[in-house]
Amino acid sequence: MTSLVQSPVPSRIQSVGAVSAQRVGFAEPLPLKSGAVLPAFELAFETYGSLNAAKDNAILVCHALSGHHHVAGHYADNPNNIGWWDNIVGPGRPFDTDRFFIVGLNNLGGCHGSTGPASSNPLTGKPWGADFPVVTVEDWVASQARLADHLGIDAWAAVIGGSLGGMQALQWTMSFPERIRNSLVIAAAPRLSAENIAFNDVARQAIITDPDFHGGHFYEHGVRPMRGLRLARMLGHITYLSDDQMAEKFGRRVKPGAGSYGFDVEFEIESYLRYQGDKFAGVFDANTYLRMTKALDYFDPAAAFENDLAAALASARAKFLVVSFTTDWRFSPARSREIVNALVKNGQDVSYAEIASAHGHDSFLMDEPHYHAVIEAYLRRVLP
Amino acid sequence: MTSLVQSPVPSRIQSVGAVSAQRVGFAEPLPLKSGAVLPAFELAFETYGSLNAAKDNAILVCHALSGHHHVAGHYADNPNNIGWWDNIVGPGRPFDTDRFFIVGLNNLGGCHGSTGPASSNPLTGKPWGADFPVVTVEDWVASQARLADHLGIDAWAAVIGGSLGGMQALQWTMSFPERIRNSLVIAAAPRLSAENIAFNDVARQAIITDPDFHGGHFYEHGVRPMRGLRLARMLGHITYLSDDQMAEKFGRRVKPGAGSYGFDVEFEIESYLRYQGDKFAGVFDANTYLRMTKALDYFDPAAAFENDLAAALASARAKFLVVSFTTDWRFSPARSREIVNALVKNGQDVSYAEIASAHGHDSFLMDEPHYHAVIEAYLRRVLP
Repeated sequence: MTSLVQSPVPSRIQSVGAVSAQRVGFAEPLPLKSGAVLPAFELAFETYGSLNAAKDNAILVCHALSGHHHVAGHYADNPNNIGWWDNIVGPGRPFDTDRFFIVGLNNLGGCHGSTGPASSNPLTGKPWGADFPVVTVEDWVASQARLADHLGIDAWAAVIGGSLGGMQALQWTMSFPERIRNSLVIAAAPRLSAENIAFNDVARQAIITDPDFHGGHFYEHGVRPMRGLRLARMLGHITYLSDDQMAEKFGRRVKPGAGSYGFDVEFEIESYLRYQGDKFAGVFDANTYLRMTKALDYFDPAAAFENDLAAALASARAKFLVVSFTTDWRFSPARSREIVNALVKNGQDVSYAEIASAHGHDSFLMDEPHYHAVIEAYLRRVLP
Repeated sequence: MTSLVQSPVPSRIQSVGAVSAQRVGFAEPLPLKSGAVLPAFELAFETYGSLNAAKDNAILVCHALSGHHHVAGHYADNPNNIGWWDNIVGPGRPFDTDRFFIVGLNNLGGCHGSTGPASSNPLTGKPWGADFPVVTVEDWVASQARLADHLGIDAWAAVIGGSLGGMQALQWTMSFPERIRNSLVIAAAPRLSAENIAFNDVARQAIITDPDFHGGHFYEHGVRPMRGLRLARMLGHITYLSDDQMAEKFGRRVKPGAGSYGFDVEFEIESYLRYQGDKFAGVFDANTYLRMTKALDYFDPAAAFENDLAAALASARAKFLVVSFTTDWRFSPARSREIVNALVKNGQDVSYAEIASAHGHDSFLMDEPHYHAVIEAYLRRVLP
């Protein structure tokens, strides 16, 4: 474990500006961990900055449960649609587009442009729906390797992700040790706990038991399981925030004008959760949600090594930055330390930062100066 | 704050044996905190042991969200239906029925025999359903005082409860300071946090958005919102258990024979939660569940005293035993200490025990030797 010098965030920070999404098709079938084979697939992606002549400045950004390929910038025809990690990507930002070529993609099984459950099943001509296979973190990394091939990238300077994205950054070091030089694993865990799985299962059951789910074939019925998705997202948000943050942000405050002794919105926290739930239910695909949570549940690289995470990671050649946040109770710092300890046991090169942050699991998306400074400092070592 | 001598649980511990439920009607209207007035009501209750001549040996047991009046013993015609707190009530048990007269009741708005949403609304002759008023902890205590009158009990030797039941034990000291000599507040909090309310609201939304809820008038449709109740209970169980306990009890173990890469039960934790959810959904009333959670949300005795809990408790004359459990994250020890600190600030008589237990919030129902010894020792002081 090496220490990181904390450097201030540079003052010259800009957005990457207007960006465009791209799409690439892969005709060669993709064998999945489940045993299923995806006959062909497309990936939606975006890039920021330029690949240098040596092709050694590429960073892959992996998304979490509800993310996608629109990581930074905005669309010319929709300036308000700003990338989900825009605060960290851009000229002078920690993922400095003056130095790095940044790639974001929508994962296989997603609902933002890559092949997923709402895509047409070539065998039937109808949406895949429930028949879309369950994809795993390993499968995603395999599909991302195809994208790297397409872009002419032999090895990533770094793969980075938070939460489920961090699991992909970790998996890259095991699936393709020669194709990743640095793995930045943020707010992640080496596998879910029983409690993590429990929350996921309640969310899944909310969706599956929604009468509008129709066994996953709701597309054909012209409906969407909005009730279930809404509940899943409300529950998710509870686990993304910290108890303290909720207390500070909402406390027991009552929404102005709200009635009482009834069941409409009364406390502000209720208003927030229902708003977040409604917003999400209006746009996200239920079958994608189910599969993203299953990918989380299944991720367990140590399982094939008699639960010895160090053994699972022994083949990795990358250097690591592991980051956790003090108030994250979904994937607490103790879970990140499991990864760090395994790497230390192997004598591998790992830096670890435990960031004091009030924002719980969501901290990895926030504009936390200390956190961004750690990323910035680490990436200065990757490519000065 | 006084210290408690820890005494061993006596070896002569017995069940109270076969018991019978009773019911009493109150014809005088009950004004509720909401402004509504309940025209008349019935309470289901059970008693164990005998009221002594001085009538100073009565203990009231208040139940939590899903509890009822069947606290101890079994029914002659159903020996498997054992009271929910049987492990602590009986001859030689901490609530020693050789010394105490123990009273358990089903709270107003409940679904186990007391007047509640499924009862007939005298104005319409149909079930109250959505029209049953929201009841608060204060309302419950007022109705319990009527039960005390009926039983000829001027003052309780003790009122005890865990979780929502502990809030009632606390409220008794403020509503009727002359009618309670000891308040035993177990695994409770002086008010819910934003996170507590958030979990309750997700549970309520699961019920309310179930198409079988019919705005609370499902009785007339011959259906019950089983899906919503099931989700509410699954979620509740996550918050009742500790993360460590879940890890130990279930971990990432897969249910034998379960398939994988699908959405049926796979991990044992999923099997447990779904079983608990199904069991509960089969018997509990959805309108009662909504009202129990609202009573939790509304409980906030400090609110009327500029959030000064000590001021709210200043009128109390009772002695207090406050008990918390180290792994309880629903109502953590810090929440119990808020109550203790307020009482200490007032110079009131309070004992506090923070019990090392692996069972999370549910610890208050468990046969924890240290916990039971603390209750036993405290009640020896109440009545040797």
